[in-house]
Amino acid sequence: INSKLPHTGTTIFTVMSKLAEEHKAINLSQGFPDYDCNPKLLNFVNDAMQKGFNQYAPMPGLPVLRELIAEKVSNLYGASYHPDTEVTITAGGTQAIFTALSSCINSGDEVIIFEPAYDCYAPAIKLLGGLCKPYELAPPNYEIDWEMVKKLFTANTKMIILNSPQNPTGCTLSEKDIKALIKLTKNTDILILSDEVYEHIIFDDNKHRSIALYPELRERSFIVASFGKLLHATGWKMGYCLAPEQLMKEFRKVHQFNVFSVNTPMQLGIANYLKDPETYTSLPGFFQQKRDFFRSLLMETNFKLLPCNGSYFQCVSYAHLNKEKDTDMAIRLVKEYGVASIPVSAFYIRSTDHQVLRFCFAKKQETLEKAVERLMKL
Amino acid sequence: INSKLPHTGTTIFTVMSKLAEEHKAINLSQGFPDYDCNPKLLNFVNDAMQKGFNQYAPMPGLPVLRELIAEKVSNLYGASYHPDTEVTITAGGTQAIFTALSSCINSGDEVIIFEPAYDCYAPAIKLLGGLCKPYELAPPNYEIDWEMVKKLFTANTKMIILNSPQNPTGCTLSEKDIKALIKLTKNTDILILSDEVYEHIIFDDNKHRSIALYPELRERSFIVASFGKLLHATGWKMGYCLAPEQLMKEFRKVHQFNVFSVNTPMQLGIANYLKDPETYTSLPGFFQQKRDFFRSLLMETNFKLLPCNGSYFQCVSYAHLNKEKDTDMAIRLVKEYGVASIPVSAFYIRSTDHQVLRFCFAKKQETLEKAVERLMKL
Ligand SMILES: CSCCC(=O)C(=O)O
Ligand SMILES: CSCCC(=O)C(=O)O
Repeated sequence: INSKLPHTGTTIFTVMSKLAEEHKAINLSQGFPDYDCNPKLLNFVNDAMQKGFNQYAPMPGLPVLRELIAEKVSNLYGASYHPDTEVTITAGGTQAIFTALSSCINSGDEVIIFEPAYDCYAPAIKLLGGLCKPYELAPPNYEIDWEMVKKLFTANTKMIILNSPQNPTGCTLSEKDIKALIKLTKNTDILILSDEVYEHIIFDDNKHRSIALYPELRERSFIVASFGKLLHATGWKMGYCLAPEQLMKEFRKVHQFNVFSVNTPMQLGIANYLKDPETYTSLPGFFQQKRDFFRSLLMETNFKLLPCNGSYFQCVSYAHLNKEKDTDMAIRLVKEYGVASIPVSAFYIRSTDHQVLRFCFAKKQETLEKAVERLMKL
Repeated sequence: INSKLPHTGTTIFTVMSKLAEEHKAINLSQGFPDYDCNPKLLNFVNDAMQKGFNQYAPMPGLPVLRELIAEKVSNLYGASYHPDTEVTITAGGTQAIFTALSSCINSGDEVIIFEPAYDCYAPAIKLLGGLCKPYELAPPNYEIDWEMVKKLFTANTKMIILNSPQNPTGCTLSEKDIKALIKLTKNTDILILSDEVYEHIIFDDNKHRSIALYPELRERSFIVASFGKLLHATGWKMGYCLAPEQLMKEFRKVHQFNVFSVNTPMQLGIANYLKDPETYTSLPGFFQQKRDFFRSLLMETNFKLLPCNGSYFQCVSYAHLNKEKDTDMAIRLVKEYGVASIPVSAFYIRSTDHQVLRFCFAKKQETLEKAVERLMKL
């Protein structure tokens, strides 16, 4: 068998989480909470199972859950997505991304991504015979020069992938960015895949600029969201996709032959839980407290903190300390200091190294304290 | 957006289940039980949630579940699959099939399928740029003439998809079939995708001939299995894939960017439940009772029963009654008789119509009785 992805190894998240376990390090690498979900939510899921909701859900998801999502999107972004035809429940954000790409990328199509970028975009594009055109951004602010984006456009440009709040950088798109994007893609057929899995983790006076807010973009965009982030339950692998009917029709054609449908009792449990909007309106505050706490601790270390406007990731630079490769540095932090992080070079196709590490702060206060105590020694 | 699957509509399962609901018909169309799962199993899943197992599972699945699967496969088929490298947990059998195909089918590759065939194979192959080469089998016995299979071979033949026990026909591969297959594929690189989601639903003295039993085939086969069928929980969308290390390596490269990993508390709950092998050894007997009961009832109708050696589907022919198209007949059965079935022409790419309908008998005794009572009027 000839490998279709000869250069793909194990993801950095698996590698670092395993290393953390082996060395009993505090794991701030892979993004997941070390605290429990709301017991109410667990009870809703259990109720659904006990009441016998254990057979196939409809292919696009349970109507009640799709309706609640449409309501949330309408409340937050003033956008109207029809639950019947424009909302589909997925087995996590990643499956939504893979399915959206599969539904529209053809051999030879070019897709623009902003690096550092979450690591599932490029291999999926490659698998589909597409060409990934990365635009490399740099610390500390990872700003986008839209003139540079324009230069990446060709007759084959099929899609732009956005991710705001961004993993790993914690940066968010500004109103200026969105305006530039609208201008740049006006009168083109370029599609947008907007990975908004951290939509509810946003800080200070910043607000989440969902693509749903912008009719000019929305009409040719897939928007991907994650219940794992919203519910502190990354292991449930539940998410959803929003798209205008015409795009969603193609999405569902692939979805129905990829997973067909998604876990029924989890869908019903989540629906019952989401009926209270506080479940999502309370999230920014919850995480702001963690971010502020973690940043205040990190100030005392020798790292330089990069900005963090959203997501549950804090990046730090150590370029002023040494020029060690960030992968080596990350490994050394595990082995010698007992703290696991993610080297940000793993998010660049060319492994571009700016001596930046990413820490996940979706952790208990004690965990963050203990981790920074160890990092103080550096 | 140009559709990549212009001829794909909604699956027949969705169509018929919806029609059944609209007309309050007894739904023997889509394959799912109308009785509950074992409460023990539900409690195991709930325990896992309550104990905090709600974050990402390892990409290939929880080790304990993979070990139990390897044990089951070893007990039943004497085959050794290494849990670390040759077993992967998936979000249902369909995701395993889609992922296996995605990992090895390239543009121009040909895949041989036996029709009537489950409807997720052909669109997935098409999406990957592959060519589906259907070999149409006919009632009552749907036997395979392996000389005919040989004639379908070309230099581009990449894979053969098997499905035994077969959906929709309930036929199973015989020892003679397997021998012919071994002979035919000897000294070739042809891969096998063996959809064995009904492995535990097998009748009389028949035993399931898993591809795992045959080293000559196993070494180049993906085997797909389903917890939904095993646990009476089709809505959980849990399954797994077995493959030799070299194939599994490619499978996992796609899996990690398709869904990354699968529902953690469900995995742990299933693992605890499967520790008792009776959970699966009791299944053939459980379904034999249902099959025998349903067949004895159907004998009293005007349908002709086709053989049923495995799966939870019973096919019937009405060719001796009328020559109505089977889709029309199925719709008429819903509207006039209040019973939903699946027209078997939906499982042929060319909609070949043999006047055969499929009924699912994974239903309570009362449901089957009531349904046949209605069918008696025909
Ligand atoms: C799917 S494992 C990775 C989790 C994550 O989103 C991250 O750590 O960036
Ligand atoms: C995935 S819905 C179809 C269920 C099934 O396997 C069938 O009815 O054949």
